[in-house]
Amino acid sequence: MTEPSSLDASGVPLPEQPHHDSGPLYVPTSARRLGDLVRLRVRVPAAYPARALALRAVADGEILTASFEMAEADAAGTWWETSLCQRNPVMVYRVCVLADAGARTASGAEAPSYAWLTAAGLIPWDVSDATDFRLVAHHPAPDWVDDAIVYQVFPDRFARSAQAPTDAQGRPAPAELPDWAIPMAWEDEPAVRGEITGRQYYGGDLDGVIERLDHIASLGADTVYLTPVFPAGSVHRYDASTFETVDPLLGGDDALARLSRALHARGMRLVLDLTTNHTGDTHEWFRAAQADADSPEAGFYLFEQHPESYACWLDVPSLPKLDQRDARLRSLLTRGPGSVVGRFLAEPFAVDGWRIDVANMTGRHGAVDLAHDVAREIRGTMREVAASTGRGTWLVAEHGHDATGDLAGDGWHGTMNYTGFTRPLWAWLADPGSTLNWLGLPMTLPKLSGTAIARTLREYNAQMPWPSRMHSQNQLASHDTPRTRTVVGSRERQLSAIAALATLPGVPTVFAGDELGAEGVTGEHARTPMPWRAIEEADGEKIDLEVLTATRALLGARREQVALRRGGLRWLHAGTDTLVYARTHPDGDVVVHLARAAHDEITLDLANLSGPGPAAVLDGVGGARAHVGDGVLRLWAEDAGASLTRIERPTP
Amino acid sequence: MTEPSSLDASGVPLPEQPHHDSGPLYVPTSARRLGDLVRLRVRVPAAYPARALALRAVADGEILTASFEMAEADAAGTWWETSLCQRNPVMVYRVCVLADAGARTASGAEAPSYAWLTAAGLIPWDVSDATDFRLVAHHPAPDWVDDAIVYQVFPDRFARSAQAPTDAQGRPAPAELPDWAIPMAWEDEPAVRGEITGRQYYGGDLDGVIERLDHIASLGADTVYLTPVFPAGSVHRYDASTFETVDPLLGGDDALARLSRALHARGMRLVLDLTTNHTGDTHEWFRAAQADADSPEAGFYLFEQHPESYACWLDVPSLPKLDQRDARLRSLLTRGPGSVVGRFLAEPFAVDGWRIDVANMTGRHGAVDLAHDVAREIRGTMREVAASTGRGTWLVAEHGHDATGDLAGDGWHGTMNYTGFTRPLWAWLADPGSTLNWLGLPMTLPKLSGTAIARTLREYNAQMPWPSRMHSQNQLASHDTPRTRTVVGSRERQLSAIAALATLPGVPTVFAGDELGAEGVTGEHARTPMPWRAIEEADGEKIDLEVLTATRALLGARREQVALRRGGLRWLHAGTDTLVYARTHPDGDVVVHLARAAHDEITLDLANLSGPGPAAVLDGVGGARAHVGDGVLRLWAEDAGASLTRIERPTP
Repeated sequence: MTEPSSLDASGVPLPEQPHHDSGPLYVPTSARRLGDLVRLRVRVPAAYPARALALRAVADGEILTASFEMAEADAAGTWWETSLCQRNPVMVYRVCVLADAGARTASGAEAPSYAWLTAAGLIPWDVSDATDFRLVAHHPAPDWVDDAIVYQVFPDRFARSAQAPTDAQGRPAPAELPDWAIPMAWEDEPAVRGEITGRQYYGGDLDGVIERLDHIASLGADTVYLTPVFPAGSVHRYDASTFETVDPLLGGDDALARLSRALHARGMRLVLDLTTNHTGDTHEWFRAAQADADSPEAGFYLFEQHPESYACWLDVPSLPKLDQRDARLRSLLTRGPGSVVGRFLAEPFAVDGWRIDVANMTGRHGAVDLAHDVAREIRGTMREVAASTGRGTWLVAEHGHDATGDLAGDGWHGTMNYTGFTRPLWAWLADPGSTLNWLGLPMTLPKLSGTAIARTLREYNAQMPWPSRMHSQNQLASHDTPRTRTVVGSRERQLSAIAALATLPGVPTVFAGDELGAEGVTGEHARTPMPWRAIEEADGEKIDLEVLTATRALLGARREQVALRRGGLRWLHAGTDTLVYARTHPDGDVVVHLARAAHDEITLDLANLSGPGPAAVLDGVGGARAHVGDGVLRLWAEDAGASLTRIERPTP
Repeated sequence: MTEPSSLDASGVPLPEQPHHDSGPLYVPTSARRLGDLVRLRVRVPAAYPARALALRAVADGEILTASFEMAEADAAGTWWETSLCQRNPVMVYRVCVLADAGARTASGAEAPSYAWLTAAGLIPWDVSDATDFRLVAHHPAPDWVDDAIVYQVFPDRFARSAQAPTDAQGRPAPAELPDWAIPMAWEDEPAVRGEITGRQYYGGDLDGVIERLDHIASLGADTVYLTPVFPAGSVHRYDASTFETVDPLLGGDDALARLSRALHARGMRLVLDLTTNHTGDTHEWFRAAQADADSPEAGFYLFEQHPESYACWLDVPSLPKLDQRDARLRSLLTRGPGSVVGRFLAEPFAVDGWRIDVANMTGRHGAVDLAHDVAREIRGTMREVAASTGRGTWLVAEHGHDATGDLAGDGWHGTMNYTGFTRPLWAWLADPGSTLNWLGLPMTLPKLSGTAIARTLREYNAQMPWPSRMHSQNQLASHDTPRTRTVVGSRERQLSAIAALATLPGVPTVFAGDELGAEGVTGEHARTPMPWRAIEEADGEKIDLEVLTATRALLGARREQVALRRGGLRWLHAGTDTLVYARTHPDGDVVVHLARAAHDEITLDLANLSGPGPAAVLDGVGGARAHVGDGVLRLWAEDAGASLTRIERPTP
């Protein structure tokens, strides 16, 4: 490998390092129970001079050590094995890698005599448990989530059904137009910001989604995630006025049941969105609470001075915050099959999962922190319903910053991984001329090197259990962010971003319209109505057909290659303009090469991978190129883009 | 500074970096309440080209950003300020440091255009919250802990009182010698390992401690920590047979009360040791439990099959594990003033703190984890008693590995900081020829560079709240480890280690005998009886008088310099054989220079410190040297050792 890069301080090039990950090549991924003995494997390339390997784990709060034994060897390296008893629901472990003083790898790098192999790499000093591997025995997420590809629909902006009433100007004309609604023609551009954004009513509905399932399926997506469908005082509907019924503007309960049936008939799934942090101020609970300080509902909220002063989401008075200490609220909202959480999982809606809005703030207020308690309760309700329906459901939490502390393994299955996916990719692929703000700081989007990005991708994600990462949503953009294309500013960089989406661990989630190269400078501005005519006519003037084709191809590769869906992750290179990693799987690895710009050739000795057999280039998008020959994988780029190469396992 | 070193990936030499720490120069350290507005300050050396600084914190689970304003400037740098509302009991925060692209520091290093200043340093990519600074509003540890210097006494081995009965061979001859006890002459060497180590009875007692308080006070120590004093089946007494009374072999309840009075009369304090994880199998509770499966006590333990099979500490049958789910057990042991925890805090014992044995395993077993619950309960009991006695008490937990997850701020005040203090220093200062085992791994003590050690010291300790670090015990050795002198193998390296003990954040804890250069290859072997005659005669053949003198001088410097007790921490240099840091305080900083071997001169521009005034070298031990002149601090070493230099604040 030219220009060897190391993502850690060991000084050893990544492909020559001993490797372990939480994928099925290294740890059995079947569901585990307390008491199970789990076999752990480490691959040591022949290039690395390991003297001994030892396991360090924590069991019942105390350190446990064990030796690894060399189990198998081939010309390219050795497999080392040990086993660990699953004594606690979550166990941290790491591997001590020893070498003789001064020993060197095949490429001449000095191997540290004492180093720890953790999920953040090979570290030649003593570290905390924060980036240790984790063995999890909590009841797992349903198996289908590992294979899922999600398509996010903002119902007002996705599609109007054929029967939706409109006026002469093409604006929605429902039987009862709410006071707040400003009817908009489908082709109108949404406002960028301000109070008006929540009032611009385009009239998409749930039957409209049913009519467009072919498009969704054509991308390779199999799960539709709908932002809220409850009646509310805005088009985004995060200010629910009731959780009892589906908004009649969207078609009501019947339309949701129809959509669910239509999806299930195709083997697809449906995920809904619930606000557990707050309701709208028009919610029936809040109206009862304000009307009577002694009402049960008054205890659902945090009144500082009844009725006018109360806690609310980020001080927005229309979003009063719920008090999760209230047992009656919990039994209505989250606890048990009769709660809001429970009822929508059952017929006729039969939804397959919940995305929880503002999960990061739910139950948190001053000295009170019930966030984990609420998460565990919702998961418990979902398991209880699943026990009777036989359908496992997925629980994913919105979380806009460091979510690792909220991923103990027994609450949320995962989060929207803004911190461990979206933002690192933005910071690498951003349009150099972008004027978009970054994180509310006094700066525009940073333009960090691939090395910096790989540090964040590896070290941050190492701090959550692997199943939590696998069951989190990766999204390049959402209804809360600028559009991917606006962020990256070029088709080729968007192709590289889509390749990351299709290949990194986590559930790929496409915000409807991103596959067309849609633009938008804020979350509100990005809530673009879908240009159905341009899609039907394949109108390359109005939509980016190359992005659409690449989205289908790259998500298609994920559907074809089990390694991309269920494999572990092994970093192979990080340079200024390049990231290279493999998804590892007994079925064969897939090497992914992302380029944000033209770059010189990188060569990768296939012998250093986990006992590789023949290799074949699967796909290339944009300006990225790969070539396999003479046991070497060569990667280069003439522009931003990505390549995928499949490495077979050797036949034994 | 020659050979500039950076402990992070920013590439900026440490003295030129913007600095913030949790000491009183940067954050007010007074007790805080929810709702308090806290002023945060950052010092930016004139050498650093900062464009803007911004605060990022998490409040009620959501990100909050704020700008820093430039508040004061002098020739050497600028102070930036902002304020943060204490919305939750523990709030994480960090500082975003921006610079113009390509801007350079005075020494020519490129400043990152985007970086995060965390407790682990200046990091030019996005990081998790793990190493963020933390603002804590939990009820604080008593103020005296900040100033405490602890002397650890293993009662059987410290001193026999004048009235202790002995036989003709100088062996203890108590009225009733327990079956297990093998009487030993005071000069006999303890065994290295095996069952016999717990039976070698030397007959030290509590009145013996009273008789030797002058020695303890002469070191600068003001707090005596006694390993257990309850009756038991061994000399270490971690296998208590009752928690009702003090062991008559030690003098009984009256002797403990006398010791407490004697200490308090000198303004000194007393800390006891309690096993909450297990009892001895001779404990009255366990006997009742084994005798009757229906007894209340049977619920205190974890019987797998009554009466013979039960959970115990590391599978040692004489140490049956307690089940912290049992409410009756909790009310007897930890809950309320009438519990064991509560009673010893009151007259006549009036002890000043508890060290909790095996705290890391307490309440942890399989799917059960009540460790935090027990910690909070003990702290609650201590606060309840303190409310009536008016004496605040200290709660410190034994923890042999990564304790950061157990330091939420409302349980243990701190831990025995083996991971963030003892082991890093061992790994740096170890005798190059040492054959001691390391952590149960297939290796002897590592010999890591100062850079690696500084990474662990900084990054690991960054992961606990600053008050938890300040109220943790730093110890170079204990009754559970080999002796410091045996580990480091030379007087000069021991002097460097003692300097670290006296100057790093945390409560210095000297295991009795370490101040004499005592040796021992295991914890059992290190339980050396104190050679009182050699101490009285200043016999340099039997004890290391230079180590004794340096211990007094260095702990004396800590008592004199408030910065060493209460100051923040700023890293200034890390090289193979050198560590340099400042303790920062409004009263003036103290720069500490540790050397493990001879090293070339390091120069440090005093202008880069926090608005420095005149400087003066305080002390040097071993081969380390410091010189101040022309605004420059020069540090070098002819052998291992340490130097201390005081930097005044400029007069305004």
